[in-house]
Amino acid sequence: KYHLNLMQDLVATQDNQLESLRNKITDLTCITDGILTWKMDDYKNMFATTKAKTSHEICSESFYTSRYGYKLGATVFLNGNGSGEDKYLSLYIRLLPGEYDNLLEWPFRLPITFTLFDQNEHFEKRVNIRESFLPDISWKHFQKPEKDSDALGFGYPKFISHVMLNTRNYIKDDALFIQIKVDTSKVIPM
Amino acid sequence: KYHLNLMQDLVATQDNQLESLRNKITDLTCITDGILTWKMDDYKNMFATTKAKTSHEICSESFYTSRYGYKLGATVFLNGNGSGEDKYLSLYIRLLPGEYDNLLEWPFRLPITFTLFDQNEHFEKRVNIRESFLPDISWKHFQKPEKDSDALGFGYPKFISHVMLNTRNYIKDDALFIQIKVDTSKVIPM
Amino acid sequence: KYHLNLMQDLVATQDNQLESLRNKITDLTCITDGILTWKMDDYKNMFATTKAKTSHEICSESFYTSRYGYKLGATVFLNGNGSGEDKYLSLYIRLLPGEYDNLLEWPFRLPITFTLFDQNEHFEKRVNIRESFLPDISWKHFQKPEKDSDALGFGYPKFISHVMLNTRNYIKDDALFIQIKVDTSKVIPM
Repeated sequence: KYHLNLMQDLVATQDNQLESLRNKITDLTCITDGILTWKMDDYKNMFATTKAKTSHEICSESFYTSRYGYKLGATVFLNGNGSGEDKYLSLYIRLLPGEYDNLLEWPFRLPITFTLFDQNEHFEKRVNIRESFLPDISWKHFQKPEKDSDALGFGYPKFISHVMLNTRNYIKDDALFIQIKVDTSKVIPM
Repeated sequence: KYHLNLMQDLVATQDNQLESLRNKITDLTCITDGILTWKMDDYKNMFATTKAKTSHEICSESFYTSRYGYKLGATVFLNGNGSGEDKYLSLYIRLLPGEYDNLLEWPFRLPITFTLFDQNEHFEKRVNIRESFLPDISWKHFQKPEKDSDALGFGYPKFISHVMLNTRNYIKDDALFIQIKVDTSKVIPM
Repeated sequence: KYHLNLMQDLVATQDNQLESLRNKITDLTCITDGILTWKMDDYKNMFATTKAKTSHEICSESFYTSRYGYKLGATVFLNGNGSGEDKYLSLYIRLLPGEYDNLLEWPFRLPITFTLFDQNEHFEKRVNIRESFLPDISWKHFQKPEKDSDALGFGYPKFISHVMLNTRNYIKDDALFIQIKVDTSKVIPM
């Protein structure tokens, strides 16, 4: 009995340690250069799951525009949402509360490009799908995000139609690649 | 009883694995570009703690000046130490024994800049506190660090007075940001 | 009994979580710039072990040529293999199946340089051992790697003789440093 109690404590401690490690790793993953190339494996299953539910959202890992920059996350609705529902893949980006927000300029003004890669093995035959936008700084999406607020996503309800997505090599080996690229070339490092 | 013993072994194994993961993550955190932007959350509590003890030191995560470069760590005494005791925040840097020390040039000669950021939301109104120095290579601080030696810190006992620290937006949302930047622009990569 | 069962489940869950964390960390380690500086600690013991077995291979951590690039791993036979057996240290590189292979160009064409560092404390006295090659794209080694295939290594069975390895400061504090550098300067980022 005595040993069992001791071990219960130890296992509980380990659980906390695991949680803390997971968070640290998530933070590490975030350190980046404003370019997230998001591989979505297991497309067929994920699409089936998302079709069965209404507005089923898949979130990317979050990432930073620079080591001490803005924190962002992308969101995909494989079966579409809003005006894209049932016929399109919808793709959004949102600002997340980041560690360095108080050091950064607001609203967020960096241009963002979404790319869906054509995985044709011949580079010259690839037709990537690409959409770019410049944040409209009057919109709520681009203000400093508040903790615990459910920030809105900005993007494309009709990013690509299901019909088109199944052409070419947008899906290959049951995986697709979406890249979110934040143009940080005009940011002056502190 | 049998099960319990088995599980004790398993839990002990897990404990070792957790320790090994923690070390790996600490090492990962280290990989950097010679710039550490250190966010100190929970300032009020930390200051109270540090005031209650004599010479209470807070250590930053350690970091490398490049992927295979020098290993450094910063140290803060919120309530000051030495000539800064009770009235100043003291800030130091020290060389730590690193994985690649035998590949590097000694003594350490890279210029270092400490910055305390003013978190004013308007960039043009910010008055950051900045101090730079060039290592004096005759000092013990900048020789190749030995394992298990308690390396000395080099820096500023009077980096900023408590009075000044509580002005402007040096502290905001109970957090302050200290940046340690090692100028690696003159290092020739191997 | 009831508690014990519960705890068994919890410990099993933790085991899975540990495994998942280990994999994530291995992936993180991989993110790099095509330069692996591999520190081999504990040389004497490792050499004794490798001498006792035939063709005992030591694998480096795997690494990527860029954040979303090719995945590679290096292999060392401290006691040599093939034509280098018993007299040389053999050094090889191999392509590993990577997350982004379907986005990349094949065969692999990037020049690779192996360096064994002389750890002489005076930089100007160092004589590093260096070998470079340009992949021969007709070779199987440089085609797109298949999952679960035991990819072949490409490199130097006679990278350095044991006699020479024990001269100068190739081994220092019982450690040696091997660098594998992939020249990515001609890669056009996507």
